[in-house]
Order: sequence, then structure tokens, then C-alpha cells
Amino acid sequence: MCKYQESVEKWGIFEVEMPGKSDGNPFTDYTIQGTFCGKEETKTVDGFYDGDGIYRVRFMPSFTGDYTFTVQGSFSDEVFTGKFQVTEPSEGNHGPVRVSYTYHFAYEDGTPYYSIGTTCYVWELQSEELQEKTLETLKENAFNKIRFCIFPKHYVYNFHDPISFPYEGTPMDCSVLTRENFMQYTGRKEGNDFDYTRFNVKHFQHIEKRVKDLMELGIEADLIVMHPYDRWGFSQMSKECDDLYWKYVIARLSAYRNVWWSLANEYDLFPTKTTEDWERYARIICEKDAYSHLRSIHNCGPFYDHSRPWITHCSIQRQDLYKSAELVNEWRERYRKPVVLDEIAYEGNIEHGWGNISGQELTRRFWEAFCRGAYPGHGETYMNEDGILWWSHGGTLHGESPERFKFLKKIMDETPEPGLRPMQGMWDEVAATVDTMVPVHAYYLFYYSFMRPSFREYYFDDTTEFTVEVIDTWNMTIENRGTFKGRIHVDLPGREYMAVRIRKAE
Amino acid sequence: MCKYQESVEKWGIFEVEMPGKSDGNPFTDYTIQGTFCGKEETKTVDGFYDGDGIYRVRFMPSFTGDYTFTVQGSFSDEVFTGKFQVTEPSEGNHGPVRVSYTYHFAYEDGTPYYSIGTTCYVWELQSEELQEKTLETLKENAFNKIRFCIFPKHYVYNFHDPISFPYEGTPMDCSVLTRENFMQYTGRKEGNDFDYTRFNVKHFQHIEKRVKDLMELGIEADLIVMHPYDRWGFSQMSKECDDLYWKYVIARLSAYRNVWWSLANEYDLFPTKTTEDWERYARIICEKDAYSHLRSIHNCGPFYDHSRPWITHCSIQRQDLYKSAELVNEWRERYRKPVVLDEIAYEGNIEHGWGNISGQELTRRFWEAFCRGAYPGHGETYMNEDGILWWSHGGTLHGESPERFKFLKKIMDETPEPGLRPMQGMWDEVAATVDTMVPVHAYYLFYYSFMRPSFREYYFDDTTEFTVEVIDTWNMTIENRGTFKGRIHVDLPGREYMAVRIRKAE
Repeated sequence: MCKYQESVEKWGIFEVEMPGKSDGNPFTDYTIQGTFCGKEETKTVDGFYDGDGIYRVRFMPSFTGDYTFTVQGSFSDEVFTGKFQVTEPSEGNHGPVRVSYTYHFAYEDGTPYYSIGTTCYVWELQSEELQEKTLETLKENAFNKIRFCIFPKHYVYNFHDPISFPYEGTPMDCSVLTRENFMQYTGRKEGNDFDYTRFNVKHFQHIEKRVKDLMELGIEADLIVMHPYDRWGFSQMSKECDDLYWKYVIARLSAYRNVWWSLANEYDLFPTKTTEDWERYARIICEKDAYSHLRSIHNCGPFYDHSRPWITHCSIQRQDLYKSAELVNEWRERYRKPVVLDEIAYEGNIEHGWGNISGQELTRRFWEAFCRGAYPGHGETYMNEDGILWWSHGGTLHGESPERFKFLKKIMDETPEPGLRPMQGMWDEVAATVDTMVPVHAYYLFYYSFMRPSFREYYFDDTTEFTVEVIDTWNMTIENRGTFKGRIHVDLPGREYMAVRIRKAE
Repeated sequence: MCKYQESVEKWGIFEVEMPGKSDGNPFTDYTIQGTFCGKEETKTVDGFYDGDGIYRVRFMPSFTGDYTFTVQGSFSDEVFTGKFQVTEPSEGNHGPVRVSYTYHFAYEDGTPYYSIGTTCYVWELQSEELQEKTLETLKENAFNKIRFCIFPKHYVYNFHDPISFPYEGTPMDCSVLTRENFMQYTGRKEGNDFDYTRFNVKHFQHIEKRVKDLMELGIEADLIVMHPYDRWGFSQMSKECDDLYWKYVIARLSAYRNVWWSLANEYDLFPTKTTEDWERYARIICEKDAYSHLRSIHNCGPFYDHSRPWITHCSIQRQDLYKSAELVNEWRERYRKPVVLDEIAYEGNIEHGWGNISGQELTRRFWEAFCRGAYPGHGETYMNEDGILWWSHGGTLHGESPERFKFLKKIMDETPEPGLRPMQGMWDEVAATVDTMVPVHAYYLFYYSFMRPSFREYYFDDTTEFTVEVIDTWNMTIENRGTFKGRIHVDLPGREYMAVRIRKAE
């Protein structure tokens, strides 16, 4: 009576599909749990109602070999059991991303993960055509993480309705919205008629499809589960409805290995939520997500206390108009976790200061972040006649920075483990090393930002031979200057955005 | 027996020349004081020994009309008296610069003084030809203040001997100096043989000539009286010699209306001087300078306490690699004095972070400073084959920023009194106003720095008509967009470095 695959790859999605009770409200009235048992793990997870009398339980195995499962609950008078086999992961499947060496990330199979993120808040709720274009663009670029929302977005440049809503019901009339009046509707639910206890399963099915598409592109889905840009009441539901939502999202999505949980975007802009609420959601995740996906919470103004144990990494929006990535060292020291700069202003030209810096400035911020041992994030907000801005809608990219991120990604990929650590350089440089040998390391990276030195000098020891490369981070060139030892003099072109990479000669 | 002019213009230099005793050490063994008496002022000042048995007393009158003088002291057994007339100031002579409206400057005749400074530390101690070139360059540019040292400078790019020394004696051999070893000689006096009680009058006569040349160009001479870049012992003299030096400098130079006293450059880099020393010099200036010229003290790292009453304005070196002029609001609040940004990194390409930013970045910092109600300073450090760097030697300018300062100066000159005050604008703009009317002012200036908004909106009230101009601070254009009232929408080109000036329509 239940459907499932006979085999699944390690870190793949194993799913059991079953009929169940559909009277009353199946989202609230019934329970369903699956226990999955292999030689090296046993995990119990919640299932969920997927409409049309169908229930599902999903599981992500972390080991290979033979597994059995049992599904039961009030949703059915029957107990469902079965067995399946977990095979080796296919190429490109490295498992979920974990924190590695305190400040960095690696996939569960140990492959380092150098995060280069982007933000397209509601790309998956745009027209089918635009979504396909977004995936096409992602395929051609270096981004390996994308932040987006489960709920639709109400904000400047975001007045039209999404392709679907997360709940059954009808939304307010969006044709009344203008740039001038939209703020009056923010956080209100008047004019809407949603049942916050009945999910629109199509909405979630669709999001899952997109999470899977991203997985296949090797891109992490940093899911923004809650956000305050709302005219439908989704940001102001009761505690009970919030918890129901969290559990539903986790039951549906946690078996996807590329999922990260961003509890909220700009958590501090919710008018009614308290730290108690966020901590309660965090407890739900920690309890219900059997795979310990990465967890963060993103600020507008003040940071959430990133030192809380459930937070795996800092998801940071810059707090200063001028300094962003430059503060990474401070944040690393303070939180001792990976620092992910999810918003440090976007390349573009809209009216707002958060969305109108140049490609050069954003690329500079990326390098500042990387060389300080952090992970930068992109967004793009160019005014377009069609009103499509990458930052919210996806589509195509118009900026100059993404090309440079491909180049940066190559440099990132060439960083040895355990990854870059900011080191005390001269006062007028960003200096990083990798802790490989003592006292001289095998890898050093120096970045000069907007400064334009015509030469610099370096000294590590008298005997080690180093290969010196001059990197033009904007023009995307790497010039090998040869092998040196002792005091190393490096002539530079007197241009902005230069870096010098010094590695122990082979 | 004494020589003097029959008339002098107001704020001009009146001088009495007399023979006197030259046995022993005339710099230390004798006293000389002059008292100058007009209808509206009586001032007593020290004179000084000028070599060859000649003594001089100088006086700057602050009023027109008939004056008398008496000079006496142990330098001569005679008492010298005389009378002279003070005429109206000639064109371009507005008197010394004073603090005006707490945060700004004006000449003594009330003409606002909008400071745009530059730094050429020892331009006046280079070859005659180079000095003339410097004056030529200054004539063609917007700078109306220049910082330079009385003592010669020992530092990277500054190894050769000056054209003269301030004391009688012989210097160490400078041919031994290299980029690698020069720091070992810093602060040492070994190898020198100077008598710190006998001034080389030619050195001071020459500096006075250059101060006068600057005066004729309408440029303030911000004299750095002490500095730590020294291999001759001038930075480590005894208290007695220091005080002798200060009194000599003040006696010689305070009658020049364009003199400002900078007690020190990078006061915190002197290994042996204490706050007590700086305060003692300050007391000497306050006592001996009869004209209350502007007084400041410049930092390398920590600021001197600019709230001390003798300090007329903050002479600031930025303390952060990334933020400089952006911190002006904080400094204004803290010190409630004019903020002069004498070092916020120089346009150039030398190896040091203090001397290798682009013309665009320096121009951006100038606008940030100006729009926050402060006064920026320039310097230039381009590598040259001839080793001549404007920052120390003067000569010609190679950078892109000076042209933009002429443009900025024009905008500055069009600012109404009492001058710009930073106001609370949007979070993503630099906003300034001039306190002219209440509650709507007649002048607003908005600066967008590296941000590139494609439009902005402004609202002051419903009825006042404003003229809107879009200023491209880099391309140096002012576009008049016409007259508006109520909510004002201004389209912008989506480029960096734009400003919007909004003035009450005539």
C-alpha cells in the first residue's frame, strides 16, 4: 500500500508515500512518523500531509548499506514497513555542508566548501520562464549558495502576487499598491483571507522541486523560513501556527542535503516576535531536523547573539555604510564561528544605499571578506524596464562582479586546508595565511584593496623557497613572478585591487 | 640708529631693525622687547637676533591709524623709539584666519575661509628651482593652506641634506643612508655637531621669505614647528633649547598674518617628549604670540586631547585604514571645534598605505569631509624617477584630484554663512545644511559617495520653492534641474560621486 524506491544514494532523498486520513484538517489532526534504520544509524523523523489523501515521510541516509523503515501514526490505522538499499553517492554528491575547522565549511565527505553566495529572495515564486532563466544564470556562474524565501515578498519592486501562496485562501488585491503606499500594508493582514492551518501543498511541492534543481547544480539552498516583508499576515501568525509551519517545513525539506536554515531575514524588523520566539523555533529545528543542517539568523540592525549554541555560523548584514567585510576579524574573534556576509550591499543602481554600489566595490568587499577568512555574498539591483531585479526575482545578471567571482572562486578552490586565517600583516594590507607548517607556512595571501602600492616587500625566513604570484583581482590575471627566498621584493602595477599570493615552492 | 618703514598696511609686517651686542651668544645672552602702541591696541613682543650684529622686532598691527613704538632690552644700551602709520589693508589682505561659528574659519575681516590644505613637508628646503616650481604649482591650484616643517626631514624618500640647517654646526654624512638602514639613524644625534643654542639665521630668513611668498598667494602657512623624522638631534634637544627655539620662531614669525602653529606632526612618535612638554610649548605660544594665531597638534596614532583650551582646531590624521572623513560628525561632537583633516591618505602609488590611494578616492574623502562640515587636506606621493614627491618636496602635481579641488572650492565658496552643518539625512547619504531659516533652510547639500542611486527624493515643506542642481563631483559638472516644491524627485545618472544641491529659489 505504500510506495518507495528500492535504493537511494547516500545523502539522497528516500521517500515513502502512503494513503491516509483526509477528513478534518490533516495538517493538524493527525500524526505521522517514520523510523529509518541502517547498520550505522537509526533516525526518526516526522512525515507530512501532501494533499489528495497522500502522506509522505522523507529520509536522508548518511551511510551506505541495507536499511529498513517503519511508518506509523494516527494518520492511518496501518503501520507501513519496508526495506531499501543505500548506494554510494553519485559524482558531485558530497553530502550536506558542515562547519569545518571552526571558521570554515566542508561537505560531509570532507571536500572543502568555499561559499560564494547570492540572494534572490523570491526567484522561485516568479513566472516559470523567469525561474528557468535564473537556473540557467546560476549554472553559468560561481555561486554555490543562494538565499531565498519560502513566503512571498512584499516590498519595493515586489508588489505583484507570487505564483502560489503557502496557505489556502485568498490574498488582498495587490493592484492598489504603489511605491508611496506600500509601507502602510506591511505587516497587516486586512483584506486577506488565509487559513494559517491549511498549507497549500502545491506551493511546497514547487519549492522542493527548486531546491532539488539547485542540489543538482551543486548549489546550497539557504532557506529564509521567515521574513518581515509581508502583507498577508504570514509574519504575524499565532505561536501555534508558527510552530505548525516550522514543523511542516522541516518535515518536507530536511531530507534535502543542500538545505540550510535561515530562521529569518532581518529578524529585528518583525514587530511582534521576541527572542523567546526565535529560540523556540530554534528548538523545533534542533529537535525535528534529524540531519543538523546549518542554522543561522540574519539581522537588519543589531546582530542576533551569534554565540548561541544552536547557531552554526554568523549570517551577517553589514551594519555600517562604509565598513563591511573589513570587520570580519572582529566578528571571527567574537563568535568563533564561520562568518558569512550575506548582505554587504548589492551591485546596482537603485535609489537605496543597500543596492547601488559598483561591481568594483562589491568585488573589493568579496576579497576583503575572503582574505579575512570569511565568506561573502552577492546581490544585484540594477533598475530594469521590466522591473526584474536579480536580488528578488532572479533572471539574468547585468553587473560586472559575477565574472570576478568565478575568478575568485578559482583562487578559493586553490586554498589548502584548513582554510584562510587572517594574520597580523602590515597595518596597510589584508594578510592571510593557512596554518600548514610552523613557523613558516606554505601559503600566504596579501590583498591591497583600494590601495595602489607600486611595490611591497615580504620576509618569512631565510631558507624557504616561495613562488610569488601577482593577482589582479579585477582584471582577473595571475602573473607568476618566479621563485624567491629571504627578503622578497615584489613590484606591483600601482593599480587598485591587487593581491599577492606566496606559496611554498614545490 | 634704527631702521623702519614709515607706514605699513593693517595686518602687514612692521619691522624695526637695530644694531646690538654680538659678543658671547646673542641668541641667549640678551633680551629685546618692542612695545607698539596705537589708538586701539598696545602690544609688547619679543625681538630676535638676526646675525651680523643686527636685531629686529616685528609687529602686525590690527587697526589703522597712528602708532608709536619703543624697543629696549639688554641687547643695547640705547632705547629705540619711533612712529609709523597703519593704512587700510591692500586687496587680498583679509587678516589672519580665526575660528568662526565654532566649526568654521573666517579671516579677521569677516571673509569666510574655506580651507583646502596640502602638505609639502620640506618644500622650502629643496633647491631654489624646485621651490619656485612649487610656488608656481600652488598658484595654479586651489590650495589655500600648506603644511610644512621648519626643521629638515629625515625619512624614506628624504635622505639628502636640506639647503640649510636651523643651527650652526655640521650634519652627519647622509651618503650612508639607505631605505634599509635609515630607521636606525632616526632620533639619534651621533655624527652631528650642532650648537642647539646658535641659530643659523639664513635658515630662518629663508623660511620667512617663503612664508611671505605664500602670503602673497593667499595661502596660509601651517608651520610644523616640531617633528620626529630627525637624524640631527633636533627632536631631542634639552628643555632649555626647545624653549629657546620656540621663542625664536615666535619672535621671528608671528607677525606674518598667514602663520598657523602646528606644534608637531605625529606628536606621539617623539620617543622622549611628554604631554608636559607639549603643554609647556603651548604656554609659550599663548604667552609670546601676541596675535593668537591658530594652534593645533597633529597625531600619528592617538589624538592629542583636542578639547584643551589652547587648541583652536583639530588637526587630524585618520586613524583607520578605511574610514577617515566619515568620522567627522563624531569628532565635531566630541571637540566642538573646526575639524581639519590634514592627513587622510595621499593620492599616489608608493609602497605605503598612507600614500597610495587614487585621485577618485581622495576626492571622495574631500567631499565626505566638506559635506560633514570639516576641512580636508591633500598630499601626493607618486613614485618619480627624479625622487621628487610633492608630499615632501613640492614641485609639480601628477594626480587627478587637484583639478577636482578647484571645482570643490567653487562649491565651497558658494556656501552661505555660517557654513555647512551635517544634518540627519537618510542612512545612506551624507546630508548637510546651513542654518539660515527655521524650520526650512535655504541651503541643502546631499552627497552619495561611492553609492550610485538612479534617483532620490527630498521633502522640506509644501510651499518653499527650491532650485535643484545635480553635481558630478568627479566630472566637475553642475546641472540645473529647475525649480521645485513639495516632494522633490531627482533623477540621477547611477554613477559614483554625485551630489545634489538644493537651494531656496531666488
